[in-house]
Amino acid sequence: MAERVRGQTLRLTAPVYAACWASEGGSKEGDGPLSKGFDRISRDSYFGCDSWEKAETEMLRGCLQLCLEKAPSPPDCILGGDLLNQCVSSAFSVKDTGLPYLGLYGACSTMAEGLGLAALLVDGGGVSSACALTGSHFCTAERQYRFPLEYGGQRTPTAQWTVTGAGAVFLSGAGKGVRITHVTPGRIVDAGITDACNMGAAMAPAAFDTILAHFRDTGRDFADYDAVFTGDLGAIGHDILQDLLQREGLSPGLRYLDCGVLIYDLKTQDVHAGGSGCGCSAAVLCAHILPAMTRGIWKRVLFAGTGALMSPLTCQQGCSIPGICHAVALEWEGD
Amino acid sequence: MAERVRGQTLRLTAPVYAACWASEGGSKEGDGPLSKGFDRISRDSYFGCDSWEKAETEMLRGCLQLCLEKAPSPPDCILGGDLLNQCVSSAFSVKDTGLPYLGLYGACSTMAEGLGLAALLVDGGGVSSACALTGSHFCTAERQYRFPLEYGGQRTPTAQWTVTGAGAVFLSGAGKGVRITHVTPGRIVDAGITDACNMGAAMAPAAFDTILAHFRDTGRDFADYDAVFTGDLGAIGHDILQDLLQREGLSPGLRYLDCGVLIYDLKTQDVHAGGSGCGCSAAVLCAHILPAMTRGIWKRVLFAGTGALMSPLTCQQGCSIPGICHAVALEWEGD
Repeated sequence: MAERVRGQTLRLTAPVYAACWASEGGSKEGDGPLSKGFDRISRDSYFGCDSWEKAETEMLRGCLQLCLEKAPSPPDCILGGDLLNQCVSSAFSVKDTGLPYLGLYGACSTMAEGLGLAALLVDGGGVSSACALTGSHFCTAERQYRFPLEYGGQRTPTAQWTVTGAGAVFLSGAGKGVRITHVTPGRIVDAGITDACNMGAAMAPAAFDTILAHFRDTGRDFADYDAVFTGDLGAIGHDILQDLLQREGLSPGLRYLDCGVLIYDLKTQDVHAGGSGCGCSAAVLCAHILPAMTRGIWKRVLFAGTGALMSPLTCQQGCSIPGICHAVALEWEGD
Repeated sequence: MAERVRGQTLRLTAPVYAACWASEGGSKEGDGPLSKGFDRISRDSYFGCDSWEKAETEMLRGCLQLCLEKAPSPPDCILGGDLLNQCVSSAFSVKDTGLPYLGLYGACSTMAEGLGLAALLVDGGGVSSACALTGSHFCTAERQYRFPLEYGGQRTPTAQWTVTGAGAVFLSGAGKGVRITHVTPGRIVDAGITDACNMGAAMAPAAFDTILAHFRDTGRDFADYDAVFTGDLGAIGHDILQDLLQREGLSPGLRYLDCGVLIYDLKTQDVHAGGSGCGCSAAVLCAHILPAMTRGIWKRVLFAGTGALMSPLTCQQGCSIPGICHAVALEWEGD
C-alpha cells in the first residue's frame, strides 16, 4: 500500500513497474531529434481517416494497441484523457477494447496524472495492471483552441506547437525495470497569466510548486535525480522555472529538462517556444525517457507533467490561466 | 488494500466511509420532489456571477466549501470533473483551496467515477481522506451541447433536462456511517445510438453491462440491494434498462430507481424524459441517497453513475454515442 511521505507525496510500497510502453508521432515529430525512439511515425496527418479528430482517435487507438501487444496480458483498466472537448479521442480509442475505462482531464499533464493514478491503483492491490494513455494532434488543437488551420494565422513568439503524438504505458505489479516509487499530485496554481499564447508562463509556477513539494516531502533535491523533466513548458516556461528555482537557491544545472524543448529542434523546425499538448510529455516519456532508462542512461528520473486548465471560453471571459503539475518518480531497477 | 473479487469488481478491505457531503441546486431542483434534501438552493441562475459558466464554477465552489466545513480536516486531495469543455468549472472551483487536484472526465458518471477512485485511494493507504466533486448547470450545458437558450429551441420528447446542481462527498478511512465496499469501473458500451437528444437510450446498455458485471463478480443480485440507482437514464433509459434486465431474467421491481427520474416531477416540471448532467446523480446522491441511508431507509445501495462520452463534434461527424457506467456499492454501518 502507498504511504504518505509528508505533505503531498505518496510513496508506493508495493512494486509497480512500467512493464512496457508505446509511442506514436506525426510528421514533424518524425523530423525531430527524438524520431528514432518512436514506435511508429505517421506521415499522414489524417492517419487514414476523414477528419483530424478521427485521426487523433486512430493515433491513440493504434498506440494503445502497440502497447497492449507488448503486454503479457490485457490491463485490468485503462486511464486516459486528451485535450478535445469531452475527451473524445481517448474514449473513442478505447471503446472497442472491452476494458474498464476511467476518463481523466489533466490537460497536458494527463500522462503524469494517469501514470500516477494507475500506479496507485496497482499499488493498492485492486488491479494487477493498468494502462495510462494520452495524446494530442496539432490540427485538432489549433482549430479547437486557436484558429482553423485554413485561416493561416500568425503565431506569437511565445506560442508552442501542439505535438501530434501519443503515448501509452502498461503498469504492472510484476516484472522488473522502471519502477514507480513516488507520486506527488499537484495543486492548481494561478499566477494570473491571461495570454493563451504563453502557456509556458502559465504552467511554470505550478511546476515550481509541485517540484518543490516533492523535494520537501521526500528530502530529495536535483542532486538525487539524474534528470527532472517538466511536461511542456517550452523554452519560455523552462527559463521561467529555472529563474524560480534559482531564486529558491536550487541549481538544477543540466539535470532539468523540458519535454517541449526536447521533442523539436527549436532552431530549425519553426515551432517557436517548443512543443506542448498531452502528446508532448506522453510521447517523450515513451519514445525517449523510458527507453533511455532501460539503456542505463538515467537511473532515477522525476517526470513532472504540466497542464494549463483553461478553456477558450474562460479566456474569452477574461479569466486567468490556472496551471497544474503532477510528478511521478521513476527508478531503474534492472539488471 | 483492495482486492479483485472477480472480473471488473474491486472489494475494499480497508474501511472507507462517506464521512460527510454537501449538495447545492438551482431553482427547478428546488421546486422538485427532493428539494428538502439540498444543503442550499439558489434561485439565481447566475449564482451572483456575470456568466453562466462562472455561475457553475461558483456553485461547485460553494458546494465544496459546504462539504469541507463539515469535514474534520481538509482532504488530502480532490477528484473532480464536469461537462464544460476542458472541465473548467471544477478546476476553477478548486483552484483557490490549495489542495492537490486530480481532474476527471466521466461525463455524467463523474460522481461515481470520482467516488470510486477516491475510495480506492483511501483504501490504498496513500491518502487518509479524499473528496469527490462534480456538478452541472442547465444553461451552460444547453449552449455548449445544444442551442443558446435565447434561441428558444424546441425539445424532443426523449430529451432530458440538465440538472443545475452539484454534489461533494468527503471520504475518509476514519469514522462510521456509509461505507464504500465495492467499486466496479465500467467498460465503454456503444449501442450505435446517434440521436444526441436520446441520451437515456445511449447510456442504458452501459448501465446494463456494469450492473450485470457487478452482480456476476460479487454473486449479488437485486435482492441483495435495498435500492439500485442509475445516474441519469431518465424515463426512456430507465424503461430500456428494465427491458434489458427482464430479458436477462432479472426482476428489479421497485428496487431499481434512476436519479434522473427522481429529481424532478416528470408530470408537472416540463423536463420531458427527466434529469441529466453530472449534477444529476451527484445531487441525488448527496441530497437524497446518503441522507436516506443515514436515516436507515436503505441499508445497502448500488450507485451506478452513467455517462455519455460523445461531444457535439463527434455527433456532427456522424459518430454514435458511447456510454459508460461506473458502480459503487454503499453500505450503512451506523448505530
